[in-house]
Amino acid sequence: MNKIIECVPNFSEGQDLKKVEKIVDAFRGKEGVKLLDYSSDPDHNRSVVTVVGEPEPLKKAVIEAIGVAIKEIDMTKHHGQHPRMGATDVVPFIPIKNATTEECIELSKEVAKEVWEKYQLPVFLYEKSASAKHRQNLSKIRKGQFEGMAEKVKEEKWHPDFGEEKIHPTAGVVAIGARPPLVAFNVNLNTNDLSIADKIAKKVRYIGGGLRYVKAMGVELKDRNIVQISMNMTDFSKTSLYQSFEMIKFEAKRWGVSIVGTEIIGLVPMMALIDVAEYYLGIENFSTDQILESRIME
Amino acid sequence: MNKIIECVPNFSEGQDLKKVEKIVDAFRGKEGVKLLDYSSDPDHNRSVVTVVGEPEPLKKAVIEAIGVAIKEIDMTKHHGQHPRMGATDVVPFIPIKNATTEECIELSKEVAKEVWEKYQLPVFLYEKSASAKHRQNLSKIRKGQFEGMAEKVKEEKWHPDFGEEKIHPTAGVVAIGARPPLVAFNVNLNTNDLSIADKIAKKVRYIGGGLRYVKAMGVELKDRNIVQISMNMTDFSKTSLYQSFEMIKFEAKRWGVSIVGTEIIGLVPMMALIDVAEYYLGIENFSTDQILESRIME
Repeated sequence: MNKIIECVPNFSEGQDLKKVEKIVDAFRGKEGVKLLDYSSDPDHNRSVVTVVGEPEPLKKAVIEAIGVAIKEIDMTKHHGQHPRMGATDVVPFIPIKNATTEECIELSKEVAKEVWEKYQLPVFLYEKSASAKHRQNLSKIRKGQFEGMAEKVKEEKWHPDFGEEKIHPTAGVVAIGARPPLVAFNVNLNTNDLSIADKIAKKVRYIGGGLRYVKAMGVELKDRNIVQISMNMTDFSKTSLYQSFEMIKFEAKRWGVSIVGTEIIGLVPMMALIDVAEYYLGIENFSTDQILESRIME
Repeated sequence: MNKIIECVPNFSEGQDLKKVEKIVDAFRGKEGVKLLDYSSDPDHNRSVVTVVGEPEPLKKAVIEAIGVAIKEIDMTKHHGQHPRMGATDVVPFIPIKNATTEECIELSKEVAKEVWEKYQLPVFLYEKSASAKHRQNLSKIRKGQFEGMAEKVKEEKWHPDFGEEKIHPTAGVVAIGARPPLVAFNVNLNTNDLSIADKIAKKVRYIGGGLRYVKAMGVELKDRNIVQISMNMTDFSKTSLYQSFEMIKFEAKRWGVSIVGTEIIGLVPMMALIDVAEYYLGIENFSTDQILESRIME
């Protein structure tokens, strides 16, 4: 695969695994598409699929999967802990290799258009694909959830980007868009004082005056009797992992605590970590072409 | 490609690029084989090819290339600055993905056997494939070069592993073996005093009492008016890049100098740098399966 885009669609079914398999089947055995991972959470009643592919075959497979989800999932009967507004809840497209954010925006709009025309499923474009600033954030779009959506889409501010002022009766609505790769990066402290983790999280995160592409919150790790700053690095190409790490180290000093370790949850693009190595070793003039695996993947 | 082995054959032709192309053609357009790079040095009169592939197709292509080199290169007429003993001088096999050193040793022996049987080209097994300790080091095998090899192979200590006690009349002999990936890693200091770089190099390298898998020497960078510790990291899975970096930093203090930057020359396996990021961020329980690109390459 020369040009690689990732897609991480979330489906509102995490209990009936036969239904999940039917949806995931749309990503199997397709030239130019590779299913990397999928997992179902019964409490959330939700499944998350990770798939990569070349733009055109990926597009087709995603549209097919959304079609299967419409057939298999009835949102009027859906219960789960995770907020949700549709059978297919959210479909982010992420540039991985030889692909730009612009291409992912374009792809997300093509999928959105076809999903509306083919299935009469209304679509909100979100994140980088959003048509207005107030529609970038998924949680703002999703507020009110499936049950409130029929009323919400009648408000002018919340008309779908594709579709009319009503929801799909059983599949609700879906958010489709482009975003940079996201890295879940957690930093553990040698204290069990959650208020310290909270204070540091506030200093590091964007909304608290910290780093532009960091979301952070304090979390207790009760089994280890320590606390953690749990972060989403929402654009590591701009805010590096080492920046949040060093900033937390620096803030921790103030409270007389220190970092005991970090965690990366789930998948991470190679470049998020290569960037860290480049910084700490002070590598001059390094090119990603020098990475053997990049060359093999060309 | 599920299982990936790298091969970096060196050929004793760096001036007649038509001949080089004929050799390199053996690696082109072959299913399961990918030519990553090749470069020719006219002063050395030598070309270095970097190719990756699945074991069987790679083996076939390498044997073919050695055959072309025998046809195209006459060592009785070869002149060049780089030490050499054969038309194909050295053929290392390197495990990259889902492949072990043992598999590379096996592969190197299969190639060695076939090269002798097919072309009557005598072979020394070297590095991890060597049949005795004194035959591990390429420069020891190559000592005496092409011109001295006809006599050398008559010594019992230097009988070829495959072949009789004579050389191929025009192609000489070849060394074939398995080795770990090699990383060329240089560390620059803010001084122009070469003796400082030499002293640090001695402390860091294996033969001076330093790190097991480090070869190092001091080098002047005249255009920048600084000096450098130029290293070959011969097994980064055992001696990490950050270990040599931190050791140099530590030794540099003693001479009142500091590191101004580093360089990586040529290709580097992703894991050599991921390992650095893991160390500096203190990542707990990280698995290479979490790297998106590893999953894509599966």
